[in-house]
Amino acid sequence: MMMKDTVFPFADRHIGPSTQGSRAMLAALGIPSLETLIAQAVPKSIRLERPLEIPEAVSESEALAELAAKMSQNKTHKSFIGQGYHGTHVPAVILRNLFENPAWYTAYTPYQSEISQGRLELLFHFQTLVTELTGLPVASASLLDEATAVAEAVGIAYRHHREKRTRIVLAGALHPQTVDVVKTRAEPLGMTVGEGEIDASVAAIIVPWPDTTGVYGDYASVIQLAKAAGALVIAVADPLALTITAPPARAGVDIAAGSMQRFGVPIGYGGPHAAYLAVSETLTRLIPGRLVGQSVDSKGRAGYRLALQTREQHIRRDKATSNICTAQALLANMAVSYAIWHGPQGLQAIARGVHAQAARLAAALTGAGLSIAGAHFFDTVTVTIPGKAVSIAAEAEKGGRLLRIVDQDRLGITVDETTTEDDLKALVALFGASLPADAKATLPGERQAEGFMTQAVFHQQRSETEMMRFLRRLADKDLALDRAMIPLGSCTMKLNAAAEMLPVSWNSVANVHPFAPADHALGYKSMIDDLDRWLSEITGFDAVSLQPNAGSQGEYAGLLAIRRYHLDRGDAHRDICLIPESAHGTNPASAHMAGMRVVVVACEEAGDIDLADLKAKAELHSANLAALMITYPSTHGVFEEGVKDICAVIHQHGGQVYFDGANLNALVGLARPGDIGADVCHMNLHKTFCIPHGGGGPGVGPIGVKKHLAPFLPGHVAKGSQHAVSAAPFGSASILPITWMYIRMMGGAGLKRATEMAILNANYIAERLKSHYPVLFKGQNGRVAHECILDTRVLKDSAGISVEDIAKRLIDYGFHAPTMSWPIAGTLMVEPTESESKREIDRFCDAMILIAGEAEKVANGIWPRDDNPLVNAPHPSGDVLADDWSHPYTRREASLPAGESEENPKYWPPVSRIDNVAGDRNLVCACPPMQAYS
Amino acid sequence: MMMKDTVFPFADRHIGPSTQGSRAMLAALGIPSLETLIAQAVPKSIRLERPLEIPEAVSESEALAELAAKMSQNKTHKSFIGQGYHGTHVPAVILRNLFENPAWYTAYTPYQSEISQGRLELLFHFQTLVTELTGLPVASASLLDEATAVAEAVGIAYRHHREKRTRIVLAGALHPQTVDVVKTRAEPLGMTVGEGEIDASVAAIIVPWPDTTGVYGDYASVIQLAKAAGALVIAVADPLALTITAPPARAGVDIAAGSMQRFGVPIGYGGPHAAYLAVSETLTRLIPGRLVGQSVDSKGRAGYRLALQTREQHIRRDKATSNICTAQALLANMAVSYAIWHGPQGLQAIARGVHAQAARLAAALTGAGLSIAGAHFFDTVTVTIPGKAVSIAAEAEKGGRLLRIVDQDRLGITVDETTTEDDLKALVALFGASLPADAKATLPGERQAEGFMTQAVFHQQRSETEMMRFLRRLADKDLALDRAMIPLGSCTMKLNAAAEMLPVSWNSVANVHPFAPADHALGYKSMIDDLDRWLSEITGFDAVSLQPNAGSQGEYAGLLAIRRYHLDRGDAHRDICLIPESAHGTNPASAHMAGMRVVVVACEEAGDIDLADLKAKAELHSANLAALMITYPSTHGVFEEGVKDICAVIHQHGGQVYFDGANLNALVGLARPGDIGADVCHMNLHKTFCIPHGGGGPGVGPIGVKKHLAPFLPGHVAKGSQHAVSAAPFGSASILPITWMYIRMMGGAGLKRATEMAILNANYIAERLKSHYPVLFKGQNGRVAHECILDTRVLKDSAGISVEDIAKRLIDYGFHAPTMSWPIAGTLMVEPTESESKREIDRFCDAMILIAGEAEKVANGIWPRDDNPLVNAPHPSGDVLADDWSHPYTRREASLPAGESEENPKYWPPVSRIDNVAGDRNLVCACPPMQAYS
Repeated sequence: MMMKDTVFPFADRHIGPSTQGSRAMLAALGIPSLETLIAQAVPKSIRLERPLEIPEAVSESEALAELAAKMSQNKTHKSFIGQGYHGTHVPAVILRNLFENPAWYTAYTPYQSEISQGRLELLFHFQTLVTELTGLPVASASLLDEATAVAEAVGIAYRHHREKRTRIVLAGALHPQTVDVVKTRAEPLGMTVGEGEIDASVAAIIVPWPDTTGVYGDYASVIQLAKAAGALVIAVADPLALTITAPPARAGVDIAAGSMQRFGVPIGYGGPHAAYLAVSETLTRLIPGRLVGQSVDSKGRAGYRLALQTREQHIRRDKATSNICTAQALLANMAVSYAIWHGPQGLQAIARGVHAQAARLAAALTGAGLSIAGAHFFDTVTVTIPGKAVSIAAEAEKGGRLLRIVDQDRLGITVDETTTEDDLKALVALFGASLPADAKATLPGERQAEGFMTQAVFHQQRSETEMMRFLRRLADKDLALDRAMIPLGSCTMKLNAAAEMLPVSWNSVANVHPFAPADHALGYKSMIDDLDRWLSEITGFDAVSLQPNAGSQGEYAGLLAIRRYHLDRGDAHRDICLIPESAHGTNPASAHMAGMRVVVVACEEAGDIDLADLKAKAELHSANLAALMITYPSTHGVFEEGVKDICAVIHQHGGQVYFDGANLNALVGLARPGDIGADVCHMNLHKTFCIPHGGGGPGVGPIGVKKHLAPFLPGHVAKGSQHAVSAAPFGSASILPITWMYIRMMGGAGLKRATEMAILNANYIAERLKSHYPVLFKGQNGRVAHECILDTRVLKDSAGISVEDIAKRLIDYGFHAPTMSWPIAGTLMVEPTESESKREIDRFCDAMILIAGEAEKVANGIWPRDDNPLVNAPHPSGDVLADDWSHPYTRREASLPAGESEENPKYWPPVSRIDNVAGDRNLVCACPPMQAYS
Repeated sequence: MMMKDTVFPFADRHIGPSTQGSRAMLAALGIPSLETLIAQAVPKSIRLERPLEIPEAVSESEALAELAAKMSQNKTHKSFIGQGYHGTHVPAVILRNLFENPAWYTAYTPYQSEISQGRLELLFHFQTLVTELTGLPVASASLLDEATAVAEAVGIAYRHHREKRTRIVLAGALHPQTVDVVKTRAEPLGMTVGEGEIDASVAAIIVPWPDTTGVYGDYASVIQLAKAAGALVIAVADPLALTITAPPARAGVDIAAGSMQRFGVPIGYGGPHAAYLAVSETLTRLIPGRLVGQSVDSKGRAGYRLALQTREQHIRRDKATSNICTAQALLANMAVSYAIWHGPQGLQAIARGVHAQAARLAAALTGAGLSIAGAHFFDTVTVTIPGKAVSIAAEAEKGGRLLRIVDQDRLGITVDETTTEDDLKALVALFGASLPADAKATLPGERQAEGFMTQAVFHQQRSETEMMRFLRRLADKDLALDRAMIPLGSCTMKLNAAAEMLPVSWNSVANVHPFAPADHALGYKSMIDDLDRWLSEITGFDAVSLQPNAGSQGEYAGLLAIRRYHLDRGDAHRDICLIPESAHGTNPASAHMAGMRVVVVACEEAGDIDLADLKAKAELHSANLAALMITYPSTHGVFEEGVKDICAVIHQHGGQVYFDGANLNALVGLARPGDIGADVCHMNLHKTFCIPHGGGGPGVGPIGVKKHLAPFLPGHVAKGSQHAVSAAPFGSASILPITWMYIRMMGGAGLKRATEMAILNANYIAERLKSHYPVLFKGQNGRVAHECILDTRVLKDSAGISVEDIAKRLIDYGFHAPTMSWPIAGTLMVEPTESESKREIDRFCDAMILIAGEAEKVANGIWPRDDNPLVNAPHPSGDVLADDWSHPYTRREASLPAGESEENPKYWPPVSRIDNVAGDRNLVCACPPMQAYS
């Protein structure tokens, strides 16, 4: 009798090719088995010869039940803790149509403008919103969290001054976690953070808007002093309060930063949320991270794009002080959707409602003879009740409410849009006070109503029908994983399974405050402990920190651990970081941020690290060697044979090996960084472990370390320690269930098979395309790892067709382009991942072969070099339907190059090729307000 | 100080036009206020002069919290009750991408083939699946539930025999609810249902496959007898068991019916689920409900459509024995998606796993000396434990498991794919038995593996990536409310708000068995009590039954109540049902099914009922008058002034007034059927109360009655009563939260305002279009109700452009057509609902005006009558991109007739106009199996 387990396990669902499919691919490669391929591709010297010790796979319903039981240990008390995290109502229309919609969450970062107009437009609105709130003219498309956003603001101040300034002055009490992250960041740059005199050594002052006790101080004089001393003024401002108070720009602030979480993004035990950053015009080119700009396409249509990419997105290796190359796109888009949904009147009504509650609470407490902090506040009342803070908080907790224990004598109470009249009554009852029906507003200064958020987009989506269609229209402009393969070499775009995503919406996951008492987050703790154990096993390390909320943050945290290790041993002089020239751009940026000096190691023609050069440089810098940063398999997509020797060389000279886990998808179950010789490694949970890209974030970049580095993992003030790299103790905790579900449903064997299939898929593509495009960089046995680099320069030589032409032409075929010109100019790097089926991979290969054929027509003079479907790609419908068609190729050849497929409705790009130069020359990154919106 | 309540209330979100928008529309109508319009449109004599007594509106988060608290009173024990409802794992990929996706759930019934290819294709696969399971060649696109499907099979048998046959013989024990529904249906047709001899009076025998105790009897001889007597053989078969047992067709069965619920559709306290119905070839034209067929478009592309629409969809008023005009499209699509996801191997593995568990359970029980029912079974073991059934069931309940108490001495235990090893152990422990590791299979006969579900679609979507894209591709072919207005006059296509939809996915809603003990469904009870109270208040009745799971079922249940009322009073002779000639086609069909004779009442030119004719006919049939069926406002979209008089006439002659609530959206808060004079009324919760159409179902059609009819509302065997019209006591209970949320978030004032805005929107359209298309049927003050009829025959006269040309041309403009040629041939009936904004309504009016302009070009001879964008519409991309373009209009005029809009990506129809005749002539309603799929 057959048993239930013959039902397809999750691994068969996650992995694209069927048994027949993989058999056919192996046959095309001329090898009998997957094991043969792996033996050819992966050096024996690094192979893990035992199964991963990961619990056996369970089905999706079993995993969901197990995780639900775990997370039900969390307590979802109503939080009045505040401190940067606020209750908010996620509008259902946004929850369902954006947050839970794969068209939004499976999209990649919008580097290919033409297939990203929807999310670019929404991010552009986000920037406009931030400029409206802050009064500053330039805002970026989100940062990782409030604390890192403030740290980035400090980075701007660092870069801004021609002569180095070494002090950051805190003009008031920021949230403790923000201070800690800023200190972490400032220290390797040689800067101090604290109170003190304002003079010419001050790079910037930071003004809390309001401070951590909720109070708006009078900062006019300190701002004046700062201006006089040439220091920048940074404000950390609550965006909801800004809807009804005067914008910081009016007070002379140069930079504003803060969290947009309370704009409809669940607290989620600390993240992910979008932070904002806005600057004055003169600081535009110093702003880190992504900036969406407006440009035009080849026919003059308005089109959005990532602006100033040469600035920070392609991070300069030598002088970077930010390694930010990601954002919180999905959460920024949720936040701006919340603003679009409510509009200025709605947001202001919410803000006024919140403030009215706070004012009544304050009146009740003072009425009962208690003293509260400050004269001006928005949503937070800090009350002094000598010696009773803990006991009153305990009483509140019994009633299902959490207060902030500031110290033994003070409690913080922060209200938000979810606070009810019952809450208020219960809160004042704790203090024996009684609630007045009304109270005088205590805001620091009202915003003028006119001219705020007057742009049409904030007024047109007031009905749910309009809002739903608005979100669908935007999504339909974009191409995401829910419609086609995204064969990026620089990112692992695998399946984000629905069962992995479901828990993110659970109440037990979404509504836990990151600073809730430990016994309120036992579910989280249990899940995080599992991940710590599993990820340690997968990577061969002894401990894992889940705090870094992006890959770049992981790099940075890893290098900081190395730095602090050397410092701890009295080796402060060890500050040389060796980085191969093939490395990701973030590597040197992170090294610089960690206070290291970068020394570049040469690579051989074939892409491997030049061992001789490595040895020579290690020798040369032996006394001061801090670390080597290595990516494995290499950024060229090859398993280098000598990786263990390389690690040995570094250790021999007293250095530590930092392992960039960007390509971990080629290793899981087959080899472990820890076994290879790495001391620390970051993982991209959004690449290898199924967290979706969200159109450009969230990301999660945990690090694993060997035991000797464990004491130097990021700490957190909420856990009584320091050196945090993120605002929350566990970073973007609420999306960790995605990775938990993935590992739990795959089991050790499934994870290993996924890696093998990723390698098979890549080698199959290399095989199918090698006669059309030379495949660069193979291993000793002629195999690639999990990605392959196609040399498209052959078409440039023969027909003048550039790699960009091919990338844009793929859009006409319904594909997102592979990674362009990285790591080698004029090439495409293709990573199919294990999740793509043979059918889709063949569809992609067919398109690439047809494109080669099109280029041949150009080469043969059948089509002119300046007028053919490649150089004119992509073709929006408006172009191919034009009355006038003078091109030498047909409209069908333009838009249905692979034929009219019954099963695949065509993806139509909304614009033709976007002009990048024009966009940067005329930078527009926010909508101007309409003077007279009616 | 402003307070929180200035945040936009839900009513502002549900209602499309903004304050400015409605002001502009009123101005266009030349009236100062909404109240003026309502005074003009709605007769004063029927106006409700007080506010509805409905609780004040709460916000979406408050309503969600309130409902969650309510539904948390439900107990979601694991059910082993079976009896037609089984635990099932809803695959997450289907849950998220289909069930919770507005592109699927907001679609309308696929009458407009060209914009419905996605859901038609999936329903076609559903039909194929059913033919594969049953072995019968023709299957319909789903019915309402198992019990009604069996009743429909009985209806086929009734119609099949030229000479009337009066007996239905039950060859074994069906589920009690099925027997009751069949009896309810058979009685008015003059048929009996029961055991007995098989002779020439038998229309059909019904064979349970297996029976309600889980046992497969040996029916070979009874089937032989039936065949010999010329009776049809109906099998009620479990589809999961059919994956591994011989198909019923092989045993000579003519009709098979059953529930597809266990194919991945949650139990949901009884519904909605899809039932299947399959017949032998000779019965094809007798099959009720929807049937998807394959045809071709004008260019020869394959295209799907609803086949044989002249048969039952447009129900004949005189001889109908089915009023079915809906289906459970969304649930049928879920069920077939489950089959596509698992494929034949997966389904068979699930079935074998379930059976293995049942076999082991049986072996354990018999091993412990207990006696079980039958020798052959699939998933259900009925065990005899004299006198102990109740106590053991109570013990099981303590352990979180529900068993079926068949009687004092017998328990039924039904396992399913969610049953675990722990469950089995706990179950056998109840009986002091021990579980064997294995047991002999006890199936009645194994299916041959070869040739089962060999069609490609059941094999190609094995990975989740493929499945997700498959569902997206299908959805993208269709036009639903998430992309554009669906301005149907025959259906109210209003917003299905996300907050209304969220609860349907809750565990507390989805996982309650309809026959669970009463104290397990206290949340449901509380919600249903609210709805009973609220809907009674809205309609002016004394009691409401939520059992009918479609509008047609509501009609039928209402008429049955009238029938039983007359019978109860000894007025069996009262069987005349007056129906105006303007009535919905379902009206006479329902009357016929309720055993009534239909007498048609004439209408005046203006569409109103001819009062003189009504009086004359009531007079004539005074002694035998049973009822009048009336739609109000009329199907012509007008509030007739004399409606109260009409009701009085009927009552005067001893008749009852049945009120068709199809147009209730024009009344809510303004007038009440009960006040007007109706005795019974059905409501379409899927029209007026926000349950989405799901692409053709689910529907919910409750009825409200005056006190004297309350005793004759549908009962249910599970509640100790009879005369059910649906399988479950509360019909499609799990979607009732949608309506609950809507009413709770709107409050009485919001509901009234929605009605007023629906009337404003309709009158605004009438105003904007009246100079282009005559508006037929207005009220005394020149106002329409909530819909308007546009006479397009002017274009036929001037340019030969038919109403169908206009409907298809609207697709090129990105719109679903209004209702075509109903109630008047050559017209379009437009109902915008209150949810459409002025912007979208203007876009529609602009399109209609541009179309009139296009027709003028034809009239003027600029474009030929046989070659213009109207007669050639719609234009798929393959057509307009053709190399050869010989039409006298341009490609842009074909496909971008309103210009290239930046904000609205164009909807592209996947096919050109579908040939309806060709499809019916060559009926293909299931895919042939592929002989050698590899």
